[in-house]
Amino acid sequence: MAATLPVFMNEYKEVLEKELKKLIIGLQAPEVLKQAMDYSLQAGGKRIRPMLIFATLASFRKDPKIGLEAAAALEMIHTYSLIHDDLPSMDDDDLRRGQPTNHKVFGEAAAILAGDALLTYAFQVVAQSVCYSNEQKVTLIEWLAAAAGPEGMVAGQMADIEGETKELMLAELEYIHKNKTGRLLAYSVMAGALLAGAGENQLKHFQEYAFHIGLAFQIRDDILDIEGSEEKIGKRVGSDTVNHKSTYPSLLTMKGAKARLNEHADFAREALRQTNTESTLLFELVDLIVTRDQ
Amino acid sequence: MAATLPVFMNEYKEVLEKELKKLIIGLQAPEVLKQAMDYSLQAGGKRIRPMLIFATLASFRKDPKIGLEAAAALEMIHTYSLIHDDLPSMDDDDLRRGQPTNHKVFGEAAAILAGDALLTYAFQVVAQSVCYSNEQKVTLIEWLAAAAGPEGMVAGQMADIEGETKELMLAELEYIHKNKTGRLLAYSVMAGALLAGAGENQLKHFQEYAFHIGLAFQIRDDILDIEGSEEKIGKRVGSDTVNHKSTYPSLLTMKGAKARLNEHADFAREALRQTNTESTLLFELVDLIVTRDQ
Repeated sequence: MAATLPVFMNEYKEVLEKELKKLIIGLQAPEVLKQAMDYSLQAGGKRIRPMLIFATLASFRKDPKIGLEAAAALEMIHTYSLIHDDLPSMDDDDLRRGQPTNHKVFGEAAAILAGDALLTYAFQVVAQSVCYSNEQKVTLIEWLAAAAGPEGMVAGQMADIEGETKELMLAELEYIHKNKTGRLLAYSVMAGALLAGAGENQLKHFQEYAFHIGLAFQIRDDILDIEGSEEKIGKRVGSDTVNHKSTYPSLLTMKGAKARLNEHADFAREALRQTNTESTLLFELVDLIVTRDQ
Repeated sequence: MAATLPVFMNEYKEVLEKELKKLIIGLQAPEVLKQAMDYSLQAGGKRIRPMLIFATLASFRKDPKIGLEAAAALEMIHTYSLIHDDLPSMDDDDLRRGQPTNHKVFGEAAAILAGDALLTYAFQVVAQSVCYSNEQKVTLIEWLAAAAGPEGMVAGQMADIEGETKELMLAELEYIHKNKTGRLLAYSVMAGALLAGAGENQLKHFQEYAFHIGLAFQIRDDILDIEGSEEKIGKRVGSDTVNHKSTYPSLLTMKGAKARLNEHADFAREALRQTNTESTLLFELVDLIVTRDQ
């Protein structure tokens, strides 16, 4: 339980990636579909969302592996959203984490289908689990769909596309990020807390924590698009400025954005204290989100 | 209970379409996303899949409305698949049921997102239902995801795209149709039977029935592409021939395809007899599928 975050993340990243591999290999599906799903699932990243599930379980002294299937499903949903976001008619990105995007490798039709397949399979994985009770499954699925669907991530993505061509108010920018990134990050924490058996009041504080790290995550993203290293991020920087996209630094100045970032980090830490759990890893995750350079 | 199929279908089509409307209007989502979802959901059709749920419930003398939320979710999944299938990088269709396709009206990005939103929301609708037990919800979600995802409809769509440029063997053609169309039709019947409380043995015979009407449905589709009326179908006919697409008539001759259609209809009727239910409507649905002209 006393593992520090880097050790913990290395261990569970491997566990998660093995599980994802296993879940795809076992599918009775056309080979090219499996390859396209696997390609993006294995394209790496820090797996922040699964880590939030695992670390939340650890903060209750529960075995993080209880969250494995929920984490795999969540990572499938996150991955589908990246595949569809990168499509020519959406953000039209050729690179993701330094690798060619899914449609560049498999073509646009296969990329759309791989995204659809991952999204659908995510719910199947939770429903088929032998680890969770029916009540837990139904709550996980309801929360996950609400966080990812038309009242969550897809709403944010739609608002983002609509907002691309105009200067946004801060409230509009926050709506986009709360939904596009925040809801799924929040779900991660809530899923971990649910599986750990958290009480009503604890769930409320975890939700507060998740809300603030979600916004902190996005502000850091905007800052990295200006100050980050292309090599580390694995994609072009400066694209927001070139595209005249509203960001936290463009609306608040860089100094203001950094102050806002630290405010959200402080609120997240405060919420965490209120949960009365041993949340060393979740505190370290706040620091990671605030200081990450990729 | 003694309603004949046309009366029954008219009544429940209206009930379903009201429910779909209600489920979209209540969403906290960007207006354009709701419009894009609603546009395709309300684009009509005979609602064969929901009718299979309702009619299966009726064959157990149960209130068909028990199946309403399951039917709405199912129609959302069917609708998402049509929106994505019509995209320029997929089938590139401008018309569906005589109306401009979703991406023609809302643009490609919004169409992809409307599809993603419908797919995700379908699972939310089942999970949130106040009519089903947790056990029923989990089974419905597991079956629906399996039927729609990488081991079902998406697999069939992928194989269809891969097969477009080559002459297929009959077994390959059947693989495509079993998955692309058959799995979701089969789910419809199984969902109705599950909610009606069917026994293990009855479920087996309903599955058999669903399998055969699924193939019959597709063979009729291939026949209509040659013999059908553009006006009634709402899209160009003859496109399979122009695209050198393998179809039942191209592999079996038109006479052979019609014989095969009748064989599947007979097998479906036989399976239905074995269920020991009052399945008048389901018998009529076989006739409808075999003789439909749109």
